[in-house]
Amino acid sequence: MASLRIREAKEGDCADIIRLIRELAEYEKLSDQVQISEEALRADGFGENPFYHCVVAEILPAQGEPQGQGIGSKIIQKVAQVALAKGCTQLRLAVVDWNKRAMDLYKTLGARDLTEAEGWHSFRFEGEAMRELAGR
Amino acid sequence: MASLRIREAKEGDCADIIRLIRELAEYEKLSDQVQISEEALRADGFGENPFYHCVVAEILPAQGEPQGQGIGSKIIQKVAQVALAKGCTQLRLAVVDWNKRAMDLYKTLGARDLTEAEGWHSFRFEGEAMRELAGR
Repeated sequence: MASLRIREAKEGDCADIIRLIRELAEYEKLSDQVQISEEALRADGFGENPFYHCVVAEILPAQGEPQGQGIGSKIIQKVAQVALAKGCTQLRLAVVDWNKRAMDLYKTLGARDLTEAEGWHSFRFEGEAMRELAGR
Repeated sequence: MASLRIREAKEGDCADIIRLIRELAEYEKLSDQVQISEEALRADGFGENPFYHCVVAEILPAQGEPQGQGIGSKIIQKVAQVALAKGCTQLRLAVVDWNKRAMDLYKTLGARDLTEAEGWHSFRFEGEAMRELAGR
């Protein structure tokens, strides 16, 4: 069996984290939206009052074994454990609708598709539109 | 003209904030989803490392004048200003699809509907499903 360890991220993980962010964006065909630098990732996550928390999975696949089995589920499970321990009552995920594999996984794990069930849409201000809104 | 002042929320505002959360949920036909207490609202927003930040609008409508003109826009503008000052590059909003008035406002202000444009869906774990996921 592959050896899997899920632990809290350290500042030294930021180079790997940004690599994974870019690989995910490439898969989602949204690479042009990744503007964050490793420096910003360090500053935002590892200063006082961090903007985000992160867990990482360390995987040592056994020889000949297909990679990736159940790792996504285990990471989501870990996030749910951390969230409950911190007093959160919900855990939300965002996913693009053509990523059926991810959507099926989240449903299998017990999540509800709020966009489908209740019609929730996600809106975003950014870049020039955000600066204009702020009056700058 | 109505007198409008937008300021940072204080702990003493929590009773009013929870009243407004309940009024919004009623409008959204989602009252059954409001489980938060005033006590939790105080603890989450006004301890060390607060889970949320909040601005409130104080309004003194002039006599005979219709209420509500432009207040939503001004609050969103204020949030954009705070977000830029804190180094954020995006501002996101969630809205139910039958709330055309809100969706039109966000678009007019320069936001993009990510669900429509890119197919983003919002998923949620909660309650028993979240505890089961966490293995409790």
